[in-house]
Amino acid sequence: MPVSPDSPTQSQDESVADVIVLGGGPAGEVLAERVVRAGLSAAIVEHELLGGECSYYACIPSKALLRPLQVASTTAHLPGVEPTAPIPDALLRRRSDWVAHYDDAGQARWADKAGVKVLRGHARLVGERQIEIHQRSGAHHTVTAGRAVVIATGSTPRIPAVFEGVPVWDHRDATGAQEVPARLMIVGGGPVACEAATWMSALGAQVTLLVRGADVLGDAEPFVADLVTAGLEAAGVTIHTFTEVTSVRRPAGIDPGLGRVKGGAVTVRTSESELMEAEELLLATGRRPDLDRLNLESVDVDAAALARGDHSGLPDWLHVIGDAAGGPALTHLGKYQARQLAARLSGAKTTSDATPVPQVVFTEPQVASVGLTEAQARAAGHSTVTAEVDFTDVPGAALLRDDLTGRAKLVVDADTGLVLGATFVGPAAGELLHAATVAIVGKVPVGTLRHAVVAFPTASEVWLHLLEKLERV
Amino acid sequence: MPVSPDSPTQSQDESVADVIVLGGGPAGEVLAERVVRAGLSAAIVEHELLGGECSYYACIPSKALLRPLQVASTTAHLPGVEPTAPIPDALLRRRSDWVAHYDDAGQARWADKAGVKVLRGHARLVGERQIEIHQRSGAHHTVTAGRAVVIATGSTPRIPAVFEGVPVWDHRDATGAQEVPARLMIVGGGPVACEAATWMSALGAQVTLLVRGADVLGDAEPFVADLVTAGLEAAGVTIHTFTEVTSVRRPAGIDPGLGRVKGGAVTVRTSESELMEAEELLLATGRRPDLDRLNLESVDVDAAALARGDHSGLPDWLHVIGDAAGGPALTHLGKYQARQLAARLSGAKTTSDATPVPQVVFTEPQVASVGLTEAQARAAGHSTVTAEVDFTDVPGAALLRDDLTGRAKLVVDADTGLVLGATFVGPAAGELLHAATVAIVGKVPVGTLRHAVVAFPTASEVWLHLLEKLERV
Repeated sequence: MPVSPDSPTQSQDESVADVIVLGGGPAGEVLAERVVRAGLSAAIVEHELLGGECSYYACIPSKALLRPLQVASTTAHLPGVEPTAPIPDALLRRRSDWVAHYDDAGQARWADKAGVKVLRGHARLVGERQIEIHQRSGAHHTVTAGRAVVIATGSTPRIPAVFEGVPVWDHRDATGAQEVPARLMIVGGGPVACEAATWMSALGAQVTLLVRGADVLGDAEPFVADLVTAGLEAAGVTIHTFTEVTSVRRPAGIDPGLGRVKGGAVTVRTSESELMEAEELLLATGRRPDLDRLNLESVDVDAAALARGDHSGLPDWLHVIGDAAGGPALTHLGKYQARQLAARLSGAKTTSDATPVPQVVFTEPQVASVGLTEAQARAAGHSTVTAEVDFTDVPGAALLRDDLTGRAKLVVDADTGLVLGATFVGPAAGELLHAATVAIVGKVPVGTLRHAVVAFPTASEVWLHLLEKLERV
Repeated sequence: MPVSPDSPTQSQDESVADVIVLGGGPAGEVLAERVVRAGLSAAIVEHELLGGECSYYACIPSKALLRPLQVASTTAHLPGVEPTAPIPDALLRRRSDWVAHYDDAGQARWADKAGVKVLRGHARLVGERQIEIHQRSGAHHTVTAGRAVVIATGSTPRIPAVFEGVPVWDHRDATGAQEVPARLMIVGGGPVACEAATWMSALGAQVTLLVRGADVLGDAEPFVADLVTAGLEAAGVTIHTFTEVTSVRRPAGIDPGLGRVKGGAVTVRTSESELMEAEELLLATGRRPDLDRLNLESVDVDAAALARGDHSGLPDWLHVIGDAAGGPALTHLGKYQARQLAARLSGAKTTSDATPVPQVVFTEPQVASVGLTEAQARAAGHSTVTAEVDFTDVPGAALLRDDLTGRAKLVVDADTGLVLGATFVGPAAGELLHAATVAIVGKVPVGTLRHAVVAFPTASEVWLHLLEKLERV
């Protein structure tokens, strides 16, 4: 139901806002701020910290931990400067400062300034545009949205059956760690697993990665796994691939410091019948949309279909953005969906939300990718040409540090000369990515990209090397 | 005279190659390599080191010196890691390793492998496609190019009249320094002056910058000078603007270590009648095409016009690329011109060489720019809208270090929505630039750039903030 900002609002006593957003993570915040800017009123319902998973438990604390480690690692390979090392206590303090010590007062001030109402509690749909808000005290009241309700409740860890009820770490424990276990098993091989392995091993944990598939970061171009595996192993991480946990055992107990269930050493048995033990185990086996407590059936929405990313059954007053929408769980994707939806709710016409989604994994080396891999492009029916080059041949990259590893790949449609996808592994990879995203979204063909001169000596000059490999396109 | 690779070559006894390139810097090397790849033969005439100014005296040594300083500076503002410091001796050794100790054997091997002939000596035009090569011994011989002669002789420092004959430093002395003067005056305010001030002050010199104009980097967007000035002053550099040297005095002498004329302290008098003294003075007052010894009049070419970048008087067999062509003295521009000319010499059709030229200044903070500044765009008749934002508001930048400074600006054509220019000052600025270059060259309008999602949390997310300021475009 797109409405223009100046169309009359229904006047209902119980209507707290034109738009009620369920969940105050980045997607919900951007949506609320934008509809308010467009002249509508907005309220956010949040039962945890305003700011969401990203601000306190995911992106921010992990990157706050990883950046000093990356700089320290650089100094170990950079003649001309004294090699330096992380200071574990100071590093954990940096993390705690970046998550504002789990206090959302700053975010509440932001909401106030942005003119966004914040309603504390759990949201539960009870009818068209009607939401019951349950406070921790048990009290609850009902509010109505004048125009739209937006589900932005994020995602929650996917827990394999074998781990149900066993007190192990999830990503919140890993990003929020106050102590470093001597031995840490990490189950998973995705970005969360690889990033956590990086900081926990740098902090002194003996890390073992248990990966179900053939490789870490298995959806990426094949060379990504090779380079990230080498980086993790060089940092002392042990990686077991094709390894599934078939049983897990942990004597229960209460950790007095943390005030939550915790126990002694964790023992797992794997598909290879191996018995492994560690002081702690981190589950990093993916995320799923967090729709559990929304009572979606009350408005005839099939929660299971929605969790699969099928939005066809939503009534026109109900929308879903961010991790809850079932796509890749990425802050920037949620914020993009929020900008698009806010424009539509404000009466603007928008293009489809389908746009290439970039992703950066802040391992050592860094991994950045956007668009399609070669395999995905072929599966989608494209006739492809590709270029792959090493960063070691790029002076601007080689100047950044010695013992450089890194590789970049472009996937190009052979018929149109348009870039379909790009992957960069190596120094500054995360910052090199946006040029590829612009090329894809702007439909800039390879023949035109050749005239986009790259400054010497930057790592971005890898573009020149890639394009030279595509001379015939 | 574009020729296709398979057209018959004139057979002349003295024809050493189809294409003779005068000067073996990056532009000349890229040209020679590319025409050979296209099936022609090529020879380079070089009287100094094969690899040119960039490899031994400019880009490479300066960036080899600056990178460890940048990392050390980061550690001083990054809780979680021990602050570290440069090791002057090791830093100078890194520089010396990167310039291969001024030995071009590696480049000679490259030429051999690339099938490019190298003729050592000074080139002097003596007729159509005819070149006299003068060896250091005094011997000389004449060679003829089958098809084309390409001037790629680079540039040479511009020396203000007041410094004629006074033994002071040029950029080669600064990038090649073996010792650090206690006090160093730098005359100039451009990239060379600002970068040299950065490394010489980090190495312990007390640096004073004498800038003729109102600001350092005066051609850039105004905020660039503010941020770079603050950075230099924080590093202990003293900057005098509106200051011209009116006289200079230095007692002559021979430095036994360096085997060249050198003397005692340098004393200068400035336009403000101030008397200043330093152990050394670096002239960084710009460069001019190095055409002095080419004997251009023998082929009826006006050297003065050519030095101004006027190529209209060149016969069809004579070309000029790189710094010698009179444009900005930038390695990547020379290499681009070489790729374009090589394509034309190989019979390919190419577009005009006019393309936006990126530039990175590796100061602290880094400065990166491409296309037009707002002032330049207006002077060119564009109706402009602009966006300016601080990097401090970008989480992905703020995560990189504390005490962040940085600012970015987009200049957009108000009528077309196309990006005309971009400037980034701050962390990773040099790597952020290429996305802007792709947007300009690919003519990607602002309305499309909004769909180029930026990965969170990277410094590249500054794009999102810039585009938000341009919501009405």
